Amino acid sequence: MKYHDLSREAQEMEYQTVQAEFDSWQAKKLSLNMARGKPGREQLDMVSDILNVLAGPEDCMDGALDVRNYGELRGIPSARIFFAGLLGCRPEQVYVGGNASLQLMYDTVAKAYTHGLLHSSKPWCKEEKVKWLCPCPGYDRHFKITESFGFELIPVPMTETGPDMDLVEKLVSDSAVKGMWTVPKYSNPDGIIYSEETIHRLASLKPAASDFLLMWDNAYCIHEFQGEYVPFPDILSLCAAEGNGDMVFEFASTSKITLPGAGVACFACSEANMAYITSVMDAQVISFDKVNQLRHVKYLKDKDHTLELMRGHAAILAPKFQTVLRVLDRELEGLDIASWRHPKGGYFVSLNTAPGLAKRTLALCRQAGVTMTDAGATFPYGRDPRDCNIRIAPSLPSVGELEQAMTVFCCCLKLAALESLLNRESALST
Amino acid sequence: MKYHDLSREAQEMEYQTVQAEFDSWQAKKLSLNMARGKPGREQLDMVSDILNVLAGPEDCMDGALDVRNYGELRGIPSARIFFAGLLGCRPEQVYVGGNASLQLMYDTVAKAYTHGLLHSSKPWCKEEKVKWLCPCPGYDRHFKITESFGFELIPVPMTETGPDMDLVEKLVSDSAVKGMWTVPKYSNPDGIIYSEETIHRLASLKPAASDFLLMWDNAYCIHEFQGEYVPFPDILSLCAAEGNGDMVFEFASTSKITLPGAGVACFACSEANMAYITSVMDAQVISFDKVNQLRHVKYLKDKDHTLELMRGHAAILAPKFQTVLRVLDRELEGLDIASWRHPKGGYFVSLNTAPGLAKRTLALCRQAGVTMTDAGATFPYGRDPRDCNIRIAPSLPSVGELEQAMTVFCCCLKLAALESLLNRESALST
Repeated sequence: MKYHDLSREAQEMEYQTVQAEFDSWQAKKLSLNMARGKPGREQLDMVSDILNVLAGPEDCMDGALDVRNYGELRGIPSARIFFAGLLGCRPEQVYVGGNASLQLMYDTVAKAYTHGLLHSSKPWCKEEKVKWLCPCPGYDRHFKITESFGFELIPVPMTETGPDMDLVEKLVSDSAVKGMWTVPKYSNPDGIIYSEETIHRLASLKPAASDFLLMWDNAYCIHEFQGEYVPFPDILSLCAAEGNGDMVFEFASTSKITLPGAGVACFACSEANMAYITSVMDAQVISFDKVNQLRHVKYLKDKDHTLELMRGHAAILAPKFQTVLRVLDRELEGLDIASWRHPKGGYFVSLNTAPGLAKRTLALCRQAGVTMTDAGATFPYGRDPRDCNIRIAPSLPSVGELEQAMTVFCCCLKLAALESLLNRESALST
Repeated sequence: MKYHDLSREAQEMEYQTVQAEFDSWQAKKLSLNMARGKPGREQLDMVSDILNVLAGPEDCMDGALDVRNYGELRGIPSARIFFAGLLGCRPEQVYVGGNASLQLMYDTVAKAYTHGLLHSSKPWCKEEKVKWLCPCPGYDRHFKITESFGFELIPVPMTETGPDMDLVEKLVSDSAVKGMWTVPKYSNPDGIIYSEETIHRLASLKPAASDFLLMWDNAYCIHEFQGEYVPFPDILSLCAAEGNGDMVFEFASTSKITLPGAGVACFACSEANMAYITSVMDAQVISFDKVNQLRHVKYLKDKDHTLELMRGHAAILAPKFQTVLRVLDRELEGLDIASWRHPKGGYFVSLNTAPGLAKRTLALCRQAGVTMTDAGATFPYGRDPRDCNIRIAPSLPSVGELEQAMTVFCCCLKLAALESLLNRESALST
């Protein structure tokens, strides 16, 4: 029964019960972590054969190129072909970098700030003001990049089909709006796949800023854990078809395909952008680690083979997501204190509490030894205006730990909801 | 006999002889490269066992840390200990990054530009003007980094004991002078080891800029190819002793210890700088490739073991440097058209032609199929005011190729000198 429909007396009773449960959890001194989208040990073990792919000098040739030596700023040819296959673009449009797409994203924004982009009239550091669109809930590390350069972050609500495009189209008419974050497939944290219409409207945006930068973070492009692989369109050709070829930089990585700390990341962009950005990058780096690039190409082979590997990850991840959803259903169904999504890919379950409960819920979780992503993290500046979104990352703990952690989480959420109904929070926070 | 002391007739005769030799070289259509300090194939093969150091999940633990997963921004503990041992500083002062110290250097300057350093009153992009000291001849990629941010590069002549310190001490009294490049051991390209006095004067500089940045690129810290290992002082403690603890960032890498494209780089700085810079870097990267860090620690073990490995590199490099010097002696001794250094470490031989001959010599080399670092590259903006410095990189070709390439080089230099004496250049350039 809905908590708010209970009588005051019933609420008090429920509060006593939940408080007792919370106390018993706290006594167990748990230490469980659902804070980040980290693959679990089993996933790492599954792909650790990648360590043995290159064994000697004879394995280190990519065609005529010895990958052990200096050179090849844009990445080795076979790795550019591999990522082009994954993303559906052309190898000439692909830059293969190091172990982190986050770093490539940061660098792209940093280059805009220090040097300007291809169509900038000046570096962004010389602009009076730079504004940036942030679909939210979204990825905290995205927001932090643009925050760190002092941009004004403008929240754009997510809908079932992606960012609110009416609002986006309106906002980009401001020439100070220089760019936008997106995670088009299995958005972080909602797990939403942008609809065909949303993608088309993004590709055909008419921003006032000639150097508007659409950051297309395809982090979960092949990351289904349930059901069949869902194809996605090539954003580069869609933008090009709309005369926006130079507007978009796409990003991807093998961080959740092979080893998160030691994968290979890439960006893809128009050839004009590629020529420009590599001319600026030329001062920064001779090349990223080409041995690891080749190691990945030999291990992953091509898109089909990689999709097969992803089914192995799915087999490990699916029971974890099912556990999260099962406990949420069991503990919270019908109480009307939260709603949550049922993603089929990506790394998160996004849950919205009744307004004003997220921070308190997670503070209680911390007290009970369960670490979650900070409340508010999914919003620009860490400020969730309704204090309701919570990102659950089920990938790291085991199914057994998850069962426990999620039960604790639900207990904390119920406690927070009852405190709020009974106006008890202040007493408890002392 | 000195070319300029020859009679006009003898010069003419020598010119005909050298021109004929040049023609015969040109006819051979050679393709030899001495442009960059790239290790040769034999060196790469010697260290390729590093590919087999990590074979499975059980090898991937650094203490309790699974290096395959996300995290550990500053690098894995054992790698921080390894580089601290190499550099003589403390592990807490070490940040371990990716495959390129160049990138760490670029990023340090970039952070100063976009965010400011610990003692900056504002980011350097907000400064009217930033000036930068460039000991020269020096490393072209250093100069390019600071040039790419629009700094004004100020040349500082190198002496036998390092940069001209009288000039440096004078220049840093200008508060617009924000930093300086250095390669303290086996300087690129001269192979000079800064004297104890030079290092002391650098450590005790009193720059007007509170955020003056001493870039200490210890690229060749253990890179002897002749004679015993030469110890070097810990610049961090020297600076700290002079009240300049936050002035210096030191850089090193395994690029010329293991694999150039796939090594591990680090920087070292005061703990106050470390806290500041990692707080800014936190938006940029979760960590660099920790698997490769561990691979390196397991392969290199410690400083002593690494020095042993360096003797293997020396055994390959020494004959190459000897070949270069032997051909220079044989071909140029006594002609008074060039002088050259005899380094005991590093990756280059620095040669100075008589004024005005470097560009022409290298143009002739190109015509004869021998690629060298561009003339002028060792000076800011690629402008060698006397057009005389040439950087020879003997590491990549085989001894046989070097013998040939250096003979061609000497032929070209002689031809350039004779053209100049006989005023023939214009005729030839047509």
